[in-house]
Amino acid sequence: MNDQDRHGTVVVSSRCEFDLIVDVLEKHGATNNDAQLQATILVEGDLRGQHSHGLRRVPVLAKRLKNKVTASGVEPVVSYAGSARAHVDGRHGLGPVVAKHAIDTLLVTAKSAGIAMVSVANSGHVGMLAPYVERMADEGFIGLALTTSEALVAPWGGTRAMVGTNPIGIGIPTEGAPLVVDMSTAAVSAGKILDYAARGQDIPLGWAVDNYGNQTTSSVEASQGAIAPFGGPKGYALGLAIEILVGLTTASSLGREVHGTLDTDTFSTKGDLFIAIPSPESPSILNGLTTYLEQLRSEGTEHGSVLIPGDRARKLREERMKDGIPLDKQLWKQITDLATIGE
Amino acid sequence: MNDQDRHGTVVVSSRCEFDLIVDVLEKHGATNNDAQLQATILVEGDLRGQHSHGLRRVPVLAKRLKNKVTASGVEPVVSYAGSARAHVDGRHGLGPVVAKHAIDTLLVTAKSAGIAMVSVANSGHVGMLAPYVERMADEGFIGLALTTSEALVAPWGGTRAMVGTNPIGIGIPTEGAPLVVDMSTAAVSAGKILDYAARGQDIPLGWAVDNYGNQTTSSVEASQGAIAPFGGPKGYALGLAIEILVGLTTASSLGREVHGTLDTDTFSTKGDLFIAIPSPESPSILNGLTTYLEQLRSEGTEHGSVLIPGDRARKLREERMKDGIPLDKQLWKQITDLATIGE
Repeated sequence: MNDQDRHGTVVVSSRCEFDLIVDVLEKHGATNNDAQLQATILVEGDLRGQHSHGLRRVPVLAKRLKNKVTASGVEPVVSYAGSARAHVDGRHGLGPVVAKHAIDTLLVTAKSAGIAMVSVANSGHVGMLAPYVERMADEGFIGLALTTSEALVAPWGGTRAMVGTNPIGIGIPTEGAPLVVDMSTAAVSAGKILDYAARGQDIPLGWAVDNYGNQTTSSVEASQGAIAPFGGPKGYALGLAIEILVGLTTASSLGREVHGTLDTDTFSTKGDLFIAIPSPESPSILNGLTTYLEQLRSEGTEHGSVLIPGDRARKLREERMKDGIPLDKQLWKQITDLATIGE
Repeated sequence: MNDQDRHGTVVVSSRCEFDLIVDVLEKHGATNNDAQLQATILVEGDLRGQHSHGLRRVPVLAKRLKNKVTASGVEPVVSYAGSARAHVDGRHGLGPVVAKHAIDTLLVTAKSAGIAMVSVANSGHVGMLAPYVERMADEGFIGLALTTSEALVAPWGGTRAMVGTNPIGIGIPTEGAPLVVDMSTAAVSAGKILDYAARGQDIPLGWAVDNYGNQTTSSVEASQGAIAPFGGPKGYALGLAIEILVGLTTASSLGREVHGTLDTDTFSTKGDLFIAIPSPESPSILNGLTTYLEQLRSEGTEHGSVLIPGDRARKLREERMKDGIPLDKQLWKQITDLATIGE
């Protein structure tokens, strides 16, 4: 039973959720512009079923603004290191605000250089990566997004959390909807293990290790241990390479030194990396891609269908734009209280 | 029992293997320079224990040269599309020859642009990615290498092989040896499944699907079906994104249209992509990385150690440089015959 099952559900429109978040963030010191950018990303999380990256993040964000470890109304500082390489110092602004600034810069550069990269430091949690790479795809670019996070994942063979959940975002334009990958390099989210623990249920083998580094099916042992990387040693190698690639290029922290997306009182020390490549416009190349995607989608069996990354989230988003978003009732009340009576 | 177990083993020095391969390739029409570049990459495969990318590839390469679907002594054609973006038409040259040309170009561009990308089409099989990204790391760059291959992997939920094994190579300089990731996005190599089938042994669940798209432990059903992606749907998403990213940017083929690395009579239609980013030189950043890597390596338990990607292959390579490389006796005889009596 997750929170929604325990507390009951309220169904709200995306507009209604958006307005509430803007209201709360403004009351805690965000400018209207910044609050809107942050709210958009959080609502996208809930629309796509990634509730761990939605409304649930508001209390921490509000507190961070109040505690002045996250800023609003500050202008990020852009510097260049080559014709295709920019760095953005976010000056501790909200993640989506700094990321928008970074990607605005990136796409201009990528257009002329043929590929470009922007690294981002001193910036808040960016949230889901899908909306960023989708934006890049919508504007005609193959987009890559990488970000680090607090260490929650055990290295393969190890006992303690030493690597972030380090997600990968990839957006690729097609003649139809873009292909959108947005996946963590952890086997599962921390929230999911906590849900199982709250229910007293066992978790599947492969999700987590206990304090001694052994794979465990006990959700209690898992919540005292660390999450496993997805896909065993390969997922570990990939997550670690992202940790170091992002850490080095953004000059931000590594491993257990990464802070500031889950807590309410330390500056953010994680980094974000965005890469854009102008997508080919040749009709024959794009037709070839369309044919390939059609072949893949027709490969399903009686047991199920073959999906292209992004298909499921897009379908859910469309439904929720029409029918509203189911949200945890207690969480909704908590955020409403934050807007009306503050903390 | 793999081939070496069945046929017995011969132990040869890397120099001896290198000389034999050069000899065979020259006898089949390669220039000395091209034969040396190709031999170096193949020997690296055997030195690092990746025998599927070693000597075993020589008969197909020799036949491809003889059949004129792979060329030698041709000059790749480089074109530019922006200050940071080059494309190399390999004119059907040997993979390592074209890749060297491409990376030479790439590193010059990356140095001034801050990041650069080179796409490669009409080029032979590149072999293991590790030596390429390791070279980039040795020259002070964070290196990425992606390549497509014949469709051997089933999409998640599908029945037929529709996606290549699409490996990812990542090299990152450190104060010590570079971090080197070289991993296929397939759960396992086709060769490994064939080894199990030859022994009449079951394979672990998760390696492959049968003709109906069901996961199977039967190595016979698996060899008639397709390999599974590593790490379930996430590995599928990643492998597919690489297929399309490489296919689009190199204007090469997708899915079952990819040919020319396993057969002996069609031009290559796969693509390669290399990206380089100058690595930071700041002592404090590099010290931070060293500390992090030391922390990771000390995280092992009594059951085993935590490795950094590249550690295992580097250790094996050092041993084999000293003690020689164990190779399948029958394969060694086959290649020796190719050098002396031809086909």
